[in-house]
Amino acid sequence: MISTPHMQAREEYVPSAASHLYCPECGATYDLHQQQSYCQNPACLHPLLVAYHVPNDWRKEHLALGPASMWRYAPMLPLQRIENRVSLGEGWTPLLPVKRHPGKLWIKHEALNPSGSFKARGISMAISRAKELGVKQVVLPTAGNAGGAVSAYAARAGMKARVYMPETTPMVFQQECQFMGAELHLTPGSIRESGAQMKKAADHDQWFDLSTLKEPYRIEGKKTMGYEIAEQLQWKVPDVVIYPTGGGTGLIGIWKAFVELGRLGWTNGKLPRMVAVQASGCQPLVEAFREGTATVIPPAHPKTLASGLRVPKSFGDRLLLRILAETQGFAIAVSDEEILDGVSQLARREGIFVAPEGGATWMAYQKLLKMNWLNRDESVILLNTGSAYKYLENMV
Amino acid sequence: MISTPHMQAREEYVPSAASHLYCPECGATYDLHQQQSYCQNPACLHPLLVAYHVPNDWRKEHLALGPASMWRYAPMLPLQRIENRVSLGEGWTPLLPVKRHPGKLWIKHEALNPSGSFKARGISMAISRAKELGVKQVVLPTAGNAGGAVSAYAARAGMKARVYMPETTPMVFQQECQFMGAELHLTPGSIRESGAQMKKAADHDQWFDLSTLKEPYRIEGKKTMGYEIAEQLQWKVPDVVIYPTGGGTGLIGIWKAFVELGRLGWTNGKLPRMVAVQASGCQPLVEAFREGTATVIPPAHPKTLASGLRVPKSFGDRLLLRILAETQGFAIAVSDEEILDGVSQLARREGIFVAPEGGATWMAYQKLLKMNWLNRDESVILLNTGSAYKYLENMV
Repeated sequence: MISTPHMQAREEYVPSAASHLYCPECGATYDLHQQQSYCQNPACLHPLLVAYHVPNDWRKEHLALGPASMWRYAPMLPLQRIENRVSLGEGWTPLLPVKRHPGKLWIKHEALNPSGSFKARGISMAISRAKELGVKQVVLPTAGNAGGAVSAYAARAGMKARVYMPETTPMVFQQECQFMGAELHLTPGSIRESGAQMKKAADHDQWFDLSTLKEPYRIEGKKTMGYEIAEQLQWKVPDVVIYPTGGGTGLIGIWKAFVELGRLGWTNGKLPRMVAVQASGCQPLVEAFREGTATVIPPAHPKTLASGLRVPKSFGDRLLLRILAETQGFAIAVSDEEILDGVSQLARREGIFVAPEGGATWMAYQKLLKMNWLNRDESVILLNTGSAYKYLENMV
Repeated sequence: MISTPHMQAREEYVPSAASHLYCPECGATYDLHQQQSYCQNPACLHPLLVAYHVPNDWRKEHLALGPASMWRYAPMLPLQRIENRVSLGEGWTPLLPVKRHPGKLWIKHEALNPSGSFKARGISMAISRAKELGVKQVVLPTAGNAGGAVSAYAARAGMKARVYMPETTPMVFQQECQFMGAELHLTPGSIRESGAQMKKAADHDQWFDLSTLKEPYRIEGKKTMGYEIAEQLQWKVPDVVIYPTGGGTGLIGIWKAFVELGRLGWTNGKLPRMVAVQASGCQPLVEAFREGTATVIPPAHPKTLASGLRVPKSFGDRLLLRILAETQGFAIAVSDEEILDGVSQLARREGIFVAPEGGATWMAYQKLLKMNWLNRDESVILLNTGSAYKYLENMV
């Protein structure tokens, strides 16, 4: 039993069961104990995943004694040494029942994370692993929330952070980076142009790149949303998960969680049907899903008030489309007007104040009901990815 | 074992051990099963407290199986029936170690609550009890965060909410009330004028008054901060709690928690020295503490960017001053410049983004060190009462 100041409760220390990294596209494997980015096979360049063996001496009954954060699942996370954990209390967020559909519909309320969004999970994990592997400075382009999370966790870790962000991102997202002491660069266009600008910096190769899916650990942090949903439902697998999809790390992470939970024997091995929600003004996955193509065609002028959905092309588009197909999932778009209506409905009817991305999932749920793609007896999770307070500039 | 959709984990149902209400000033007792406000003895008019017997069959080892919210302490809370619980996942917030003072200094990070502040605890409890006692519409004046919390929990409970707020409160606080469907009235001056305006409404007597300390249950929600601090420190009592004090419900609540924990035998019965922090522009408690008076003299023109501290006179001033004296505590003021500096220091050095009220506690800690009122070997808790994101209008 190792005691650390990050603990919220007694924490029984079980070592990480991570064994190696692999490319789910070409099967190449990579060393866990070296810095890695994505598959280096030039014909592939796919995001990497972390492989695990089944941890010894770890039962789901032990979880109650773990911390009230995503680190309760430490044995199925890649961090090797607990002293490298960079934590601000991320995860173990409430799963709130939607009162009008009791016992069937829940909102996973990721607003209650440090930095006010689900990004805290992925970035806490990525920064912890970066620290473990000796990284001193990190950089990324962001559509909004990831910038604040990187700024906060880098400050916590004593690292330097550099952030590239569209100049049209609401002020709150810019200000939090500045408060945390990050180097902030505002760019025209969308996150695509932010990424291009990032690569042009003369010293770019001296900064560790935390871009979505270009390093392997943000997925591992995000997958804890899936573990938590399962634990909070007493290990029953929901029928459907409706996920607002920009870069899509969380959708991949939740899918990976349910695959792993089946292998651990903690669930019955079923996978939820995964639904990607996008905004009408930026719906590359919806179009590719409809056309049945393997990758997306990025829109020329992506536009939506849901900043987190303004991602013209995810680096993981191939894997995302495969997950939607393999889980008998779906991809659906909602307009900005519908998104605002969704935020307002959840606030007035349920007292739950969600980010525009969360409003999008609620409207998607209603559309999918009308289409008879799902029915009211199915158990459904809506992901609200962040805090409404950060978006008020876009919403009023 | 009763299963409810609000649970986050298995919840063993132990009935509330609340027995009655009493006035700590004159000793009068009141019925728990009727709507109550404050002591009706015309010579007294003091806030009421809830009395408990020691719950049967409840051990601190049971807590790990309770929900990851303030409701884990349900047997020592006043709600009688679990189906009246109005919850959005409030409480069980992280206790974050301050890296520069490891093992000695922690921040209780109340930003990670629904509605982005500690107000969620008191209002969740007050609205739950109001529902239990048949209330259909609630009203209060607010300096900021309580308005959002009441709007959210009333929406969750299906009640009407009416909120009076100074017109100078940052827009975010106003907007959240509107999103949740509350009736919002903006008033000139401070919360004092908001309260006066509230009472002038022709139908005021038809609305249940949730004003700070004028109903007995907000304290009971706030006291869970004290229970959590103790549990997160493995039942060691901290030497000092530094609390940003506007209305002061939380200071009373934390003190009450440590009194109760001693009586339960879960701690050694020691009480932390309680420190009230106020802003230089509104420091009635600091002045009364210095002068040794029993009540405060309200400032004529209260002014501070820390909206939650702009409270010229707490209804509980007498009790607050008694707690400061009896625990060998202190009262101290910091300027708005120091507050901003405090927010910035915690963001850059610790990656913790706090509300101005949280920045105030950090600066107070440093002042108290310099004064040798406390030393670095003492264990100290700083309360950060809310989310920085809601205050950016005041801070940049």
